[in-house]
Amino acid sequence: MSEPDKTQADMIAIDWGTTNCRASLLATDGRELDTRRAPEGAGGLQSSEFEAVFERLVDGWPDLPVWICGMAGSRQGWREAPYLSCPAKLADLGCQITRVTTASGRTVRIVPGLLYRDLRNNSDIMRGEETQIAGLLAKQDDFSGLVILPGTHCKWVEIQDGMVLRFQTFLTGELYSLLATASILRHSVSAHEADIPADHPAFLEGFLDVTSGRVPLVAGLFQIRTQDVLNGAQKDDSAARLSGLMIGAEFEAAKSGGWLEGTQDSFIIGGRGLTPLYEKACELVGIKSQSVFGLDASTKGLWYLAHRQKITAG
Amino acid sequence: MSEPDKTQADMIAIDWGTTNCRASLLATDGRELDTRRAPEGAGGLQSSEFEAVFERLVDGWPDLPVWICGMAGSRQGWREAPYLSCPAKLADLGCQITRVTTASGRTVRIVPGLLYRDLRNNSDIMRGEETQIAGLLAKQDDFSGLVILPGTHCKWVEIQDGMVLRFQTFLTGELYSLLATASILRHSVSAHEADIPADHPAFLEGFLDVTSGRVPLVAGLFQIRTQDVLNGAQKDDSAARLSGLMIGAEFEAAKSGGWLEGTQDSFIIGGRGLTPLYEKACELVGIKSQSVFGLDASTKGLWYLAHRQKITAG
Repeated sequence: MSEPDKTQADMIAIDWGTTNCRASLLATDGRELDTRRAPEGAGGLQSSEFEAVFERLVDGWPDLPVWICGMAGSRQGWREAPYLSCPAKLADLGCQITRVTTASGRTVRIVPGLLYRDLRNNSDIMRGEETQIAGLLAKQDDFSGLVILPGTHCKWVEIQDGMVLRFQTFLTGELYSLLATASILRHSVSAHEADIPADHPAFLEGFLDVTSGRVPLVAGLFQIRTQDVLNGAQKDDSAARLSGLMIGAEFEAAKSGGWLEGTQDSFIIGGRGLTPLYEKACELVGIKSQSVFGLDASTKGLWYLAHRQKITAG
Repeated sequence: MSEPDKTQADMIAIDWGTTNCRASLLATDGRELDTRRAPEGAGGLQSSEFEAVFERLVDGWPDLPVWICGMAGSRQGWREAPYLSCPAKLADLGCQITRVTTASGRTVRIVPGLLYRDLRNNSDIMRGEETQIAGLLAKQDDFSGLVILPGTHCKWVEIQDGMVLRFQTFLTGELYSLLATASILRHSVSAHEADIPADHPAFLEGFLDVTSGRVPLVAGLFQIRTQDVLNGAQKDDSAARLSGLMIGAEFEAAKSGGWLEGTQDSFIIGGRGLTPLYEKACELVGIKSQSVFGLDASTKGLWYLAHRQKITAG
């Protein structure tokens, strides 16, 4: 990569999650001029340690507005950026930021997470995903529809005219990973859900077994082990079935939560591995979906929030 | 304990599971004259290592018939004792044993596990639990009804006139343990499911939330974390709710598998921790249950199999 033309630079966007951190130097039009990564995720840092990691990360970059999303804004993060309650207009997230000024004089803006409380007083929270969704609005700021963000803690989010009405978190990715690496199934299943082809017959069968009600999730898990003990199943086939069961249980729960009613437009924001599995799952329940790559989405989201902010403040 | 009167001794019964091993010297009437434990579970031993552990365990005990149940009979165990297919008469397990003669001249009898294949060709297996159930028959050899064996891999078993008709395994205990110790919930939940009082309101509420269909299991998990982040929930309360959700999902799956239809008599065979939770769960779905302590059950089961065998063999 040739030296970026920093004279065009306009802002610094940082997605600081639990396990890693990625900073981008953005041009006025949102193009990435330069990108750097740090291995220090927010999950492994004390509050007092964030500033040093940050200064190393942006060292040599111009003194521009810095926008951060993700777990760096949690109570155990750099500085707590309090949750905004739903319904919440995504474009307004940029007006509710928490500021930190570093010893070197840089001003850092941390984006708030979102909180949703349902009628039964059950709560749900997100931090980082709200900015990825804001990235969608950079292109279409009156977007209405369903957004699914697959991952360790998958989120289903209902948007109306650029406003988050409600959302729900499913532990699907974390459960898959625990079962595949730490349970009795680890002997029978390959660990990388991201490598499963979305048209794998065992994925489809597992998904349909659960969503049709034929096999409840908790009944289907031990069968994977039994098939292997008795018939020597392939680890990749067993992994595909496990993923089908897990994502099937998520879609089944989403259905009972009213998430599939009248759904028309939907976006999937995620990594390159899980997204095709969720696209296939959407197709199987009759939802038309488009996909967006997650890291691009959070960078675009920070750019969108920063510029809406400028316009609003203008 | 005073020196046991070995002249009354009649057989040696060994429950050799994945993580530990327990040997009992039994009198003709089934009383335990002496009991020893070894920390070497079958899961950590090579086939060639079992004999030395066994000889140390029974050293000094008289040369009597030795009966073993559990994972020592698996393919990775001491010697594979092939599965018997259901329907299987429990009293006949003793006629299908696998014999091993040790270098010291002792003859060891390993009890087979059971295999069940349903109409859709899904299979399930057990190894060890069949002997615990046989322990019930020592008192009532024409028993008919449902037996639930809570644990890492909970088994539901249908018995008719002392015959195992079918069974189904649920990963409930293992899932609880993984979620409580290795997932995001570990920050919010205490790890010892066995310490949860069966009348804990959060256990009851979690159970009823899932079995009523109000909260699907995969939707209820992250809420436990959220309640803690937002409201600072007690770890014991969160553990009780998690256990209620998990056992609720098991009972819900059992219901859809036809396990709750026309159920009258039922036994729970398990440890002192989980059994009260399953008793309460049975009560909540209208099943009358009696409980039996698991370790006693396997010793009694081996005694029963050995003596039925003697009677049958004339």
